[in-house]
Amino acid sequence: MPKQSMSRRRFLQSTGAAAIWLPTSVRGYSSSEMQALFVDGVMQQDVSKWELDTPALCVDIDLLESNIATMQSTTAANGIASRPHAKTHKTPIIAQMQLDSGSVGICTAKVSEAEAMFQHGIEQILMTTTNVTATKIRRAMNLRESCSGFIQATDSPENARLLSAAAVAKGLVADVVIDVDPGGHRTGITPGQPALRLAQLVDSLPGLRLRGLLCYDGGSQHVKGFAARKQQTLERLMGATETYDLFQGSGLSTEIFSGGGTGTYNIDHDTRGLTDIQVGSYVFMDAQYIDIGGESNAEAYTDFQPSLTIMTTVLNAQYQGRATTDAGAKACTINRPWPVVKGESGMSYTSGSDEFGSLVYEAGASRTYKVGDKLELIVSHCDPVVNLYNQMYAIRNDRVEAIWQIAARGMSA
Amino acid sequence: MPKQSMSRRRFLQSTGAAAIWLPTSVRGYSSSEMQALFVDGVMQQDVSKWELDTPALCVDIDLLESNIATMQSTTAANGIASRPHAKTHKTPIIAQMQLDSGSVGICTAKVSEAEAMFQHGIEQILMTTTNVTATKIRRAMNLRESCSGFIQATDSPENARLLSAAAVAKGLVADVVIDVDPGGHRTGITPGQPALRLAQLVDSLPGLRLRGLLCYDGGSQHVKGFAARKQQTLERLMGATETYDLFQGSGLSTEIFSGGGTGTYNIDHDTRGLTDIQVGSYVFMDAQYIDIGGESNAEAYTDFQPSLTIMTTVLNAQYQGRATTDAGAKACTINRPWPVVKGESGMSYTSGSDEFGSLVYEAGASRTYKVGDKLELIVSHCDPVVNLYNQMYAIRNDRVEAIWQIAARGMSA
Repeated sequence: MPKQSMSRRRFLQSTGAAAIWLPTSVRGYSSSEMQALFVDGVMQQDVSKWELDTPALCVDIDLLESNIATMQSTTAANGIASRPHAKTHKTPIIAQMQLDSGSVGICTAKVSEAEAMFQHGIEQILMTTTNVTATKIRRAMNLRESCSGFIQATDSPENARLLSAAAVAKGLVADVVIDVDPGGHRTGITPGQPALRLAQLVDSLPGLRLRGLLCYDGGSQHVKGFAARKQQTLERLMGATETYDLFQGSGLSTEIFSGGGTGTYNIDHDTRGLTDIQVGSYVFMDAQYIDIGGESNAEAYTDFQPSLTIMTTVLNAQYQGRATTDAGAKACTINRPWPVVKGESGMSYTSGSDEFGSLVYEAGASRTYKVGDKLELIVSHCDPVVNLYNQMYAIRNDRVEAIWQIAARGMSA
Repeated sequence: MPKQSMSRRRFLQSTGAAAIWLPTSVRGYSSSEMQALFVDGVMQQDVSKWELDTPALCVDIDLLESNIATMQSTTAANGIASRPHAKTHKTPIIAQMQLDSGSVGICTAKVSEAEAMFQHGIEQILMTTTNVTATKIRRAMNLRESCSGFIQATDSPENARLLSAAAVAKGLVADVVIDVDPGGHRTGITPGQPALRLAQLVDSLPGLRLRGLLCYDGGSQHVKGFAARKQQTLERLMGATETYDLFQGSGLSTEIFSGGGTGTYNIDHDTRGLTDIQVGSYVFMDAQYIDIGGESNAEAYTDFQPSLTIMTTVLNAQYQGRATTDAGAKACTINRPWPVVKGESGMSYTSGSDEFGSLVYEAGASRTYKVGDKLELIVSHCDPVVNLYNQMYAIRNDRVEAIWQIAARGMSA
């Protein structure tokens, strides 16, 4: 899709243009029926996404691949790399697609996610959260023993000493980056001298190898308007840049200086020394990100296309001006903005009720629905939505091409 | 706990009084390590809930049993039964505890939940949502074929005919109740004559057996203040009562007239003909329900006690006035009110960030935390929180007594 100015509504409508194939006899394959249609991983039958039993989580492979290619070409042109965050998709096959496109590794938020990714063949993993308990440190070191590409974050001298002791006890030298606080005071150490002192400590500890720093500014990713977002994120990365300079001046490793996210993917390379960005949502996009606006289109963030959708079925249509579906909070979360009906206009969807979605028609609704009809929803906020499902259907040209296991679903520990 | 007047804060603090046993050497057992400690279902070692790797979902068995007993004695005294909703817990062992206490059956919201419950030995199941697609109707009839206690809802003549045809095709007579709309226009048919005509149709169809009606008024459950809640729910049940009278006058079955929920468990029996209430959250309670106030205590709903909690660990405590934990939206949801730190006061918790919880201290905070410390959270809204976890730890006197599989987790289809 060309990066032209386009309203949020027109963007969302246009994304539905691909509904080219809808069988006349809609069957409704359940999850177990779908799995039975695969032999040695190859689909034996043409099944449309519109035939899936619902709620069903779907990813459009063409759009996903396009998003991955856009990210790769943009970061390459900007002289940095991508290190996509697997907390978004929790799906090893997508992590592998990212690595195959040229990403230098993936990120995980939790050690259980890192374990799941490694068990499924992913070997370049940066865990962006500090492991603070004895259990989690033990698990991280066990993983590091098997996985030489595992790097973990630390944000305090006490933690660094614990990590080093655990590594030494296993006869390891573990790879570590310093997590630097961008100002949100959520995780990370204060940039500047405190971060420098921690890096010097890490560099001196027998069980650790310093690999650089990370500074993920989650608070800037959803700032509306490109200019405002650019100003905020670059300002908040200044502390990390100062830290980078201190590391350089002290001869400490800055091999990794990781930051950024989907909202600032085409901004953060202006930060001196930055090596890569921890982009997550760009693979799927969602209603939250569409709302922030882009560099070339203030109305909608159209740099990436919404590839992740939920198929849902109308359960009740007997009341004027509305319909009830089978996808509520347990299928969509209650994140805002609410999910958007793909390819339609003049209707609003809410998933505030645990079991049911509510569709309300506005004046000029593009259509109405009857009981049994299906709708396709662009998700509100992709990360927690993915975390509700055990699998997603991989769709190409509206047909189910594969079933992808969300291997790290629920792995919040 | 006696039903005395007590502030929300004091109630929440008092529920933490049971923290009697905290080992000095906290280990941090992961999920797989915990499972290995059970031999033939019997725990081989004393493990405190404070030793669990986090985030961990825990249920206090004594509080759970007390809640179930309170519900049973109240409904018995009021001349009705309970038919608890398994959408809340999705856990067969809790469904069995409810049936053992005297509940006449359980409810499920989705056919996949009903299948999971039946596969785990639950045989009296009322599915409160109408199955509208061919797939779901086929699954419901397959279940009905094996499970004579399976009853399903219908809310339109078209649907009733589809259900009957599917039942006849299998050589079945399927049990059906009429879902009557309490006014929310979410599901159900309009009470009065439309509901009567549907019931007469069901009664005449060869594949169906009418068992009565249901009217679940979800919109009244969280009305704040007992008097306001009582007025609203009884008013909104009047249509269902009129329908009940019409059924009675026409000689149709009113064997089941099911309504109510946790918020109106001690109100709905005033409705003429009501046989049972679909109470769900009472087993666990949550911050949402505590806020609505009760009959004897306007400040907090203390009829039931919060049995469901999340254990979480402090990851970062280096910034003034706050701490960051490992339980964010993926462990707690973003429902409001936010989770409450059990047994403490003067601090507020938010789980708006996907991976991290934020704790902010107010003036007079009962304590502060350091990195690695654990907190216990009373959940915000139990149903969607349970739906995030594959298992819950069953705790008695702070020790892990069992691990309960949440067999219907994620079963939104």
